[in-house]
Amino acid sequence: MSEIEESFKRIQTHKGVVGVLIINRNGSVIKSTFDQETSVSYSKMVIDIFPKADQLLKINSDNDELSFFRVRSKDNDIMITPDKDFFLLVVNKIHKE
Amino acid sequence: MSEIEESFKRIQTHKGVVGVLIINRNGSVIKSTFDQETSVSYSKMVIDIFPKADQLLKINSDNDELSFFRVRSKDNDIMITPDKDFFLLVVNKIHKE
Repeated sequence: MSEIEESFKRIQTHKGVVGVLIINRNGSVIKSTFDQETSVSYSKMVIDIFPKADQLLKINSDNDELSFFRVRSKDNDIMITPDKDFFLLVVNKIHKE
Repeated sequence: MSEIEESFKRIQTHKGVVGVLIINRNGSVIKSTFDQETSVSYSKMVIDIFPKADQLLKINSDNDELSFFRVRSKDNDIMITPDKDFFLLVVNKIHKE
């Protein structure tokens, strides 16, 4: 768990990071900088979207493995990275130069 | 439609582009470099994933508008960009330097 712990701490120090969430593959919240309600909302969406994003990839190449999933708007950028046992979700505020 | 037509043609010339697909907001295929079956598969997934990706964004900021979402693996990179009336999907092969 220490590697996850380290990533969790390190990512929070990155510029623009709004929040960080780690959930397991069943959607249980492992670590989060968000409040309980927000963490659970994110977790449900990740568990819902991930298999579909994986399926989208496999349309073009069957044995492809999803390495990350990103959702972006004018102001925010959400990155979801799957690991063997966890999902790491990072919400960033987009900087306008 | 000419702007869409232009983008459709221009994107195909970009390095690494495997295929390009334009669908309307109901999922009907407007233009595609993929075969019929692949185009329909992609279209169904985009229509399924998009509202969930939009919902994911709105957890942290209600009035945020999704500008694109991206699904990436070791070998492939799929970008989906919503427009007022269309979705543009581009599948890229990832180059290893």
